[in-house]
Amino acid sequence: MLDSLIGFLDLLGVAVFAATGSLVASRKEMDIIGFGLMATFTGIGGGTLRDVILDRPVFWMTDPLYLVVCLTVAVLVFVFAHRIQKRFIWLLWGDAIGLVAFSVMGAEIALKSGAGPLQAVTLGIITATFGGLARDLVAGEVPLPLRQEIYVTAALLGGGLYVSLAALGYPKVYIALISIAAGFALRGGAIAFGWVLPRYKNRAGRPY
Amino acid sequence: MLDSLIGFLDLLGVAVFAATGSLVASRKEMDIIGFGLMATFTGIGGGTLRDVILDRPVFWMTDPLYLVVCLTVAVLVFVFAHRIQKRFIWLLWGDAIGLVAFSVMGAEIALKSGAGPLQAVTLGIITATFGGLARDLVAGEVPLPLRQEIYVTAALLGGGLYVSLAALGYPKVYIALISIAAGFALRGGAIAFGWVLPRYKNRAGRPY
Amino acid sequence: MLDSLIGFLDLLGVAVFAATGSLVASRKEMDIIGFGLMATFTGIGGGTLRDVILDRPVFWMTDPLYLVVCLTVAVLVFVFAHRIQKRFIWLLWGDAIGLVAFSVMGAEIALKSGAGPLQAVTLGIITATFGGLARDLVAGEVPLPLRQEIYVTAALLGGGLYVSLAALGYPKVYIALISIAAGFALRGGAIAFGWVLPRYKNRAGRPY
Repeated sequence: MLDSLIGFLDLLGVAVFAATGSLVASRKEMDIIGFGLMATFTGIGGGTLRDVILDRPVFWMTDPLYLVVCLTVAVLVFVFAHRIQKRFIWLLWGDAIGLVAFSVMGAEIALKSGAGPLQAVTLGIITATFGGLARDLVAGEVPLPLRQEIYVTAALLGGGLYVSLAALGYPKVYIALISIAAGFALRGGAIAFGWVLPRYKNRAGRPY
Repeated sequence: MLDSLIGFLDLLGVAVFAATGSLVASRKEMDIIGFGLMATFTGIGGGTLRDVILDRPVFWMTDPLYLVVCLTVAVLVFVFAHRIQKRFIWLLWGDAIGLVAFSVMGAEIALKSGAGPLQAVTLGIITATFGGLARDLVAGEVPLPLRQEIYVTAALLGGGLYVSLAALGYPKVYIALISIAAGFALRGGAIAFGWVLPRYKNRAGRPY
Repeated sequence: MLDSLIGFLDLLGVAVFAATGSLVASRKEMDIIGFGLMATFTGIGGGTLRDVILDRPVFWMTDPLYLVVCLTVAVLVFVFAHRIQKRFIWLLWGDAIGLVAFSVMGAEIALKSGAGPLQAVTLGIITATFGGLARDLVAGEVPLPLRQEIYVTAALLGGGLYVSLAALGYPKVYIALISIAAGFALRGGAIAFGWVLPRYKNRAGRPY
């Protein structure tokens, strides 16, 4: 039950991030191969780094389904992007689901691999943000995880809540759903109402 | 026979990519250490990522020859770059050889490590493009693999043809040479005649 | 004795690089989560890449102390950065200590893992520079390791001296201290007197 939930979150997150990579490719007016590239490393980048750090087999090496999903999404966006763009707000919400799903799923995989709680939360955040970070760096844009109103914070909430409640021994399927709901509510509030955390304000003239 | 062909392609690709890294260093007017850095991570970057994903020993850890090649190329370019630059067109063709050689060699190493066919083609593309991607990101330029007329497509053709023909059981030395020839012809046509794939055209006003 | 010296250098380097990541976050006026992110991957980035290439357990997975240090530094800089910035020159010297400590410590860890001398020096440089490289790329700045007057050269001197003297069989604690002193003197001279290596000068009109 937990395994199938995790598997579902995994595929959902890969597909949603692949879609954001493809949309950036459409913004840069790339060809179909560029779409495939951007979709693939945005979709699988975070989980790849997580697995390499955990020294477990990289998830897409053992099952080609993930690559198939990324490439399919790339083709669909290449063909239908002008329609999807009009629905950009839907994508922003999908991205929010992916962000939170990846952070909880990444933390669970890290715990299962024997990571400590602080490391598990960190790996959840890496899983959730690295693909988008690479996407934006390659595209020459300010990385979304650093630019946005509350974003990484939602991944921190999702993964942190999951790891905390798991340490207390609650059944994992329920706390996964609760953690995803909490993280999603926070990120959703940020999208809907522009929630931000207080930013550092420079007082000195020219810092650093 | 296959092993010595792969070994030759490997060194050739490392040397050629090290040369492109050094040329970017010359464009940025770096010092000799900067040349060595750019040459090294452009030359060994793609293969390093491939080996880390495959969880096999990183190729340059077991044989210092690769580092020696990168550093030698860096010194040669530092001293002779003003002559090489006049022969830039030769380098573009050398880069094409490296791109295709790495994509076939990367796919073969992945197959030998037990990767599935789709994963092997993906790892061939990673081997062929990651060094150049890192080179251009670090230098603050639009990455060549995303910018150029047909480029990644040639790596896809080389690696894809190799994996397909290998699955049909043909002798690997011959299909390696055929795949390299096909990928090189495609990339060569792109250099010579400016071949491009159709690009995505934005129809909506402001995408993403 | 060597182990506790290495352990101390390790923590010192992580803390100092975390501080530089946090200062860049302050320059970009990020929120506290952005500070934590920048501090963490600047602090642990170089050692993570080293451990992944060596295929040994990633150092911060086995001991949460490193993450705690990064997050603590991030909070301190968030609260006190306006004071630290006035002492920027102190930070530049701290960064010099971190750079040289990481290069010697990274080389020693590589040697202990069975790497050859050239590879050990390379891994020392990777340990010393990758965190700062990632920090500057993510922040959209010209990477310090490529921009600065003598910088990577000091890491090369520190790691190279250490590996050379270790090969001659001298006691490691002493040569670690000597190598750090030599590298620090070189980097210090560069900070104090603006030492540079001769840069490549373009002679042709438009290179590459």
